[in-house]
Amino acid sequence: MKKVQEHASHGGMQEVWQHHSHTLGCDMRFGIYLPPHAVHAQCPVLYWLSGLTCTEQNFITKAGAQRYAAEHGVIVVAPDTSPRGVAVADAEGYDLGQGAGFYLNATQAPWAENYRMHDYVERELPDLVEAHFSASNRRSISGHSMGGHGALVLALRNPGRYHSVSAFSPIVAPMQVPWGEKAFIAYLGDDRDAWRQWDACELVRAAADSANKLPLLVDQGEADEFLDTQLRPELLEAACRQSAHPFTLRRRAGYDHSYYFIASFIGEHVAYHAAALADR
Amino acid sequence: MKKVQEHASHGGMQEVWQHHSHTLGCDMRFGIYLPPHAVHAQCPVLYWLSGLTCTEQNFITKAGAQRYAAEHGVIVVAPDTSPRGVAVADAEGYDLGQGAGFYLNATQAPWAENYRMHDYVERELPDLVEAHFSASNRRSISGHSMGGHGALVLALRNPGRYHSVSAFSPIVAPMQVPWGEKAFIAYLGDDRDAWRQWDACELVRAAADSANKLPLLVDQGEADEFLDTQLRPELLEAACRQSAHPFTLRRRAGYDHSYYFIASFIGEHVAYHAAALADR
Repeated sequence: MKKVQEHASHGGMQEVWQHHSHTLGCDMRFGIYLPPHAVHAQCPVLYWLSGLTCTEQNFITKAGAQRYAAEHGVIVVAPDTSPRGVAVADAEGYDLGQGAGFYLNATQAPWAENYRMHDYVERELPDLVEAHFSASNRRSISGHSMGGHGALVLALRNPGRYHSVSAFSPIVAPMQVPWGEKAFIAYLGDDRDAWRQWDACELVRAAADSANKLPLLVDQGEADEFLDTQLRPELLEAACRQSAHPFTLRRRAGYDHSYYFIASFIGEHVAYHAAALADR
Repeated sequence: MKKVQEHASHGGMQEVWQHHSHTLGCDMRFGIYLPPHAVHAQCPVLYWLSGLTCTEQNFITKAGAQRYAAEHGVIVVAPDTSPRGVAVADAEGYDLGQGAGFYLNATQAPWAENYRMHDYVERELPDLVEAHFSASNRRSISGHSMGGHGALVLALRNPGRYHSVSAFSPIVAPMQVPWGEKAFIAYLGDDRDAWRQWDACELVRAAADSANKLPLLVDQGEADEFLDTQLRPELLEAACRQSAHPFTLRRRAGYDHSYYFIASFIGEHVAYHAAALADR
C-alpha cells in the first residue's frame, strides 16, 4: 500500500492511498481523512460512497467534510466507485462499467471478474483501514446518489456492521428506475429475483420482521434533476412505512443533485454519525 | 449578462454569470455567492482572486467559503483569472497568458489589447455586481497565490476602495521571483521601474509616508512547495517593518499550497472581512 497524496487539512491530514485489491483484482485508490484526534487515539470511521462518474477525489475536494470530521474526531474513508484499469471491463456511457460499480457483486460476464464493490467496501477496505490507520472497528456509512444506494444496501445487508447509515439523493429503488435497471441487467442478468438483494426498498421489506432495524436517514433536494426519474424517495418512504422501519426523509427546498447540496448538509450528517459512533 | 449556473448552497445561492467585458474585450464569467441575507437587504462584497490555472470554478467548488459567507451575510465574487477566448492572446505554459493574468494592465503586444485584469476587478466587475445584485458598495478583497498578489496590489493601489485585504500564500514580490519576472517581462516590458506599481513590497515602500495604511493579513503554509522560490513572505514582512505598515503573517505548520489549505482557514478570513465590512 502506498500513499499517493497528502494534504494538511483542518488540523488533520487528507491522504489518498493506493493498494492492490484482491477482491477486485486491480489497483484501487481511496481517500482517508485523519482528524487531529487520530494522532493520539483510535477513531471511528465513516465510509463515504460516491456517485456515478466519481473517483476517490470528488468527495474529498468538494464536500468540505474535513472540518466536521476534525470537530467530531471521525475518520472519513472515500473509496473509488468501481474497479479500474485497462484490464477491467468497461462500457460506453457514464452509467455502466468503470465509475459505475453500483456497490454490488456482479454475476455476469464480463463484469463478474472484477466488479465486487460490495465485498470490497464491506470487508477488504475496512480490514485495510483498521490495520494501517488509527481506526477503531466502529463504522458508519453514507453516500450520494449511486453511493447513497450503496450505503443503504450495505447497511441493510449487513446488520450490526454499521452503527448508522445516511444518504444524500440516493437511488432507493434501482429495480424500478432506468439507472438501476440498466446496471442490474448487465451486472446481475435477467432474473429479477436476483436483483432484490441489491435494492434498498426490497431489503427493507425483507427485513420487516427483524427485531433490530437500523434507522435510515435521507436528505433529498427538491430541485434535484433526477428526483422523479431515478431517485423516487417516496418508494423507500412507503416501504419503510409498510415494514415499520425507522426512516427520516428531509426534503430540502431548492437544492439540486450537486456537491453544493452535499456541502450544505454534510455537517449535519457527520454529526449524526459521530453521535451514533460515540462509544458510550 | 446571463446566468450560466445556479445551485442552492447553505441557504443562499451559488451562481455563475457570463457577460461581455468592455475592459477586457471578451466574454467573462464570474462566480457569485448570494447569502440568505441578500434576499432582504444589501450585503457587502468580498472579492476573491484565484491563482494560476484557475477559472471562476476552483474557488466556488473547493474552498467551502459559502458556509461562512452565509453565516456572516457577505456576498463572495470570484472572477476568472484572465481574459479568455480564441481571439485572446495566449502562451505555452501555465504561468503566462490565459489563466495567468496577474491582475495587472499589460502594456506590451500582444497582451495590451485584452490583459487589463486590474481595471476589470477594480472597476468593471464591482460596477456590475453593485448594479445587478443586492450588493452594497462596501468591498473587501482576498486571493490565493497569484490572486493573493492581485488582492494585495489592488488594495495598496486603491486606498479607500477596500475595507480589508487578506491573502493565502501570495506572491508578495513578483519582481524578485520567477513567476513574476516572466509575467512582468511579457506584460510590462523590460523597464523594471514600470514593474514597481505591480509589486506589493514596492507599493508598501512607496506608501511609507501615507497616513492611512490598510493592514495586510497573510496566511502561509510552511509546507508550501513554492514557499522559498516564488512566495517569500519574509520580503513583505521586511518591507512592512521598514515602512511601519501593519502586517500579520500567520505561518501554518504542515500546510501546502492547495485548496485544502485555503478550506482550512477561509472561515477565519471571511470572519475577518465581515468584521471590517460591518457598517458600524
